[in-house]
Amino acid sequence: MPIESPLLTDLYELTMLQAYFDAGMNEMASFEFFVRELPRHRNFLMAAGLEQVLDYLENLRFSSDDLSLLAQTGRFTLAFLKSLETLRFTGDVEAMREGTVFYAEEPILRVTAPMREAQLVESRVMNLLHYETVVASKAARIVLAGPGLDLVDFGLRRAHGAEAALLSARASYLAGFGGTATVLAGLQFGIPVQGTMAHSYVQAHADEFTAFEQFARSQPKHVTLLIDTYNTEAAAAKVVDVARRLERDGIAIKAVRIDSGDLADHARRVRRILDDGHLTHVAIFASGSLDEYRIRDLISAKAPIDGFGVGTRMNTSSDAPYLDCAYKLVEYAHKPCRKRSEGKATWPGRKAAFRHEGANGVMDGDWLTLAHENRDGIALLEPVMTAGVRRRDLPSLADSRDHARRQLRALPARLRALEAADSYPVAVSDALKALARKVDAGVGG
Amino acid sequence: MPIESPLLTDLYELTMLQAYFDAGMNEMASFEFFVRELPRHRNFLMAAGLEQVLDYLENLRFSSDDLSLLAQTGRFTLAFLKSLETLRFTGDVEAMREGTVFYAEEPILRVTAPMREAQLVESRVMNLLHYETVVASKAARIVLAGPGLDLVDFGLRRAHGAEAALLSARASYLAGFGGTATVLAGLQFGIPVQGTMAHSYVQAHADEFTAFEQFARSQPKHVTLLIDTYNTEAAAAKVVDVARRLERDGIAIKAVRIDSGDLADHARRVRRILDDGHLTHVAIFASGSLDEYRIRDLISAKAPIDGFGVGTRMNTSSDAPYLDCAYKLVEYAHKPCRKRSEGKATWPGRKAAFRHEGANGVMDGDWLTLAHENRDGIALLEPVMTAGVRRRDLPSLADSRDHARRQLRALPARLRALEAADSYPVAVSDALKALARKVDAGVGG
Repeated sequence: MPIESPLLTDLYELTMLQAYFDAGMNEMASFEFFVRELPRHRNFLMAAGLEQVLDYLENLRFSSDDLSLLAQTGRFTLAFLKSLETLRFTGDVEAMREGTVFYAEEPILRVTAPMREAQLVESRVMNLLHYETVVASKAARIVLAGPGLDLVDFGLRRAHGAEAALLSARASYLAGFGGTATVLAGLQFGIPVQGTMAHSYVQAHADEFTAFEQFARSQPKHVTLLIDTYNTEAAAAKVVDVARRLERDGIAIKAVRIDSGDLADHARRVRRILDDGHLTHVAIFASGSLDEYRIRDLISAKAPIDGFGVGTRMNTSSDAPYLDCAYKLVEYAHKPCRKRSEGKATWPGRKAAFRHEGANGVMDGDWLTLAHENRDGIALLEPVMTAGVRRRDLPSLADSRDHARRQLRALPARLRALEAADSYPVAVSDALKALARKVDAGVGG
Repeated sequence: MPIESPLLTDLYELTMLQAYFDAGMNEMASFEFFVRELPRHRNFLMAAGLEQVLDYLENLRFSSDDLSLLAQTGRFTLAFLKSLETLRFTGDVEAMREGTVFYAEEPILRVTAPMREAQLVESRVMNLLHYETVVASKAARIVLAGPGLDLVDFGLRRAHGAEAALLSARASYLAGFGGTATVLAGLQFGIPVQGTMAHSYVQAHADEFTAFEQFARSQPKHVTLLIDTYNTEAAAAKVVDVARRLERDGIAIKAVRIDSGDLADHARRVRRILDDGHLTHVAIFASGSLDEYRIRDLISAKAPIDGFGVGTRMNTSSDAPYLDCAYKLVEYAHKPCRKRSEGKATWPGRKAAFRHEGANGVMDGDWLTLAHENRDGIALLEPVMTAGVRRRDLPSLADSRDHARRQLRALPARLRALEAADSYPVAVSDALKALARKVDAGVGG
């Protein structure tokens, strides 16, 4: 059963659909996706995953296999299952551009569609937007910590499954990484693919010198040698010798990789060995349990490292592996609504978000308003899908990556820090507050 | 491009394969998968993901699309790509049964195959084993915290992508959960699927009473009502009224769900309201940011809660979202080997693990030995695939779940605690230590 199946959903979406079908309820509904609160120590988030959401909505349909499986559960009527045969997503979507920096309570996506469509897609829309946003937000911090460095996603092996590996390659590239080691992600999203060698390769050879030379002759244009299998400095010395021999055949070593020990210390010693061996052009690449904190420390220690392979801690977002996000009904049948569950109350109605930038181009405050209000500043949500068809002029991944870079440049200095700062001001309009009071007075009794 | 493609791999696997091909190297290699160190606060791990690994190995093949995409990268020779056309996994696999409790440095899987096959599969084998083991290990703690309770995976929306949602439903069921809300996971793995309703369903109706009644009439055999959209206790009172009306039509309410606020407090008040309304048979189900700690606290507070929906914190394993695992070459061409990278040295050679159980059936110590050594106790690794074909008598998921239950019962009392305890003794045999010294003396100079 392919993961594209609409059965990749929570059972309650389908049982609610059956109940709506029975009651003949299918008025227009608006749901908004937002994050209730930022994780501790985080100063901003970065929106990602929209393209995958639109793909999902455009391709949503129940196959006859899907329907017969549902029939076998005995929970659904034949008439209802029949109605699913022709169900397509026919709604509208407004969203923030991928790569946009956003804050708590700001919707990054709104779905407006007949209730059954808008409800059905909840689980997978959240699954896609949440994860890519988790990763882009984490990767953006790593990019801020290592500006101008070669950052490569190394995370396939400890990503949470196949799709996490693919989507984290995409989301980290969006946020400013330079490439990924995951071949399929590179092909699927047009991301540069990079790779080196494993310790096993060195171990399988009688000695490191032979391993290095063999590899270089096999991949003469992409020679990065892993030098920490036994003794890092001894291996660096062998790299110098191998380089001399390869030079005769016009093969140049591009980089060495260090994956263990005190990276700053090793990098300094290796740099000296390489420089003394006239290999000043050979870059030093580091990997192993890296994140924004370790990269910042290595940079402040002036470690001569030119690039980093960042895996597990980036694509599991290990310090904040999830966001407190929600996909909430804000309007049904043209009536605004909200839930008032303790600690989880939400703003009612279809909303807009506006951003004000100071003279220096730095963002200095957002407004959360009703959708029809007009404010100075940049409207953060824009139409991306109309009647189930996506807009033709949507940005490419490369465009979104440029947008992300500009967004990070526009971040206030205090929010670029890795430590928690005073939070960014998001003001709620009087009209929105008034609507919340009105809705509370009118319902739920 | 489907996720089953062998291009779901790190680029270096393929460049190493090209280098091995160029050098004509393809002797038998053994790689072992193990966890270097347990996460802090964790006392044991639970092996999971073997079935998916065997599926992957059995189906491994390069399609012509895969090969033409690789050709376009310009990194590989035609002769090498030709060799991939017929590449299949022809090796042997030994592994711990899924659901087996294990500890640091114990291999849970060994692949023995011609080097190119054994190397190629590294990334995806790790990706599958790592994630399911992460989840089973976390879910096992939740099962220990809530023994005998109805535990349901609610995690699709914040799982890290589609595959994480599916595999975490499986791994948590293996560890003792009773079901999942994810329809596709239920169908794919034969797991009971459960569901309730969302706040949006209540919001879309003019009042809660109508929402409850409509839903019950639509799903008369599966009535679980969500009662915290506006005011939990007021909603519980409505449940009593709705129940009276439904009774006439032979419809019984099974449960109510509380998703916010002080769950113990609400559960107590709701229990009283339901009991006073003669609904003693109606169960109380709780959800919302739950994990083993909160469940333990609710149980010690004697909260009258019968079941829990556990999502995000279980399937992101939020306190320990990854394991420090490795897939390391331990033998090549019948010669044992190991890497000695600082802080990452590994035990050389093909190994076995034996477990000793005390008279009471409680596990009281493991041995890590060379594969050919014989020890008293239970051999933890067993052959599961021979020459690329899986054994016919492998346990079903249900069998593995029983095995997991027995394993948790056999845990020493101190390791069942949620807090870190004195670690479980894993002794290393003298022969293995001697081999490590011998290997170090002989290589890497």
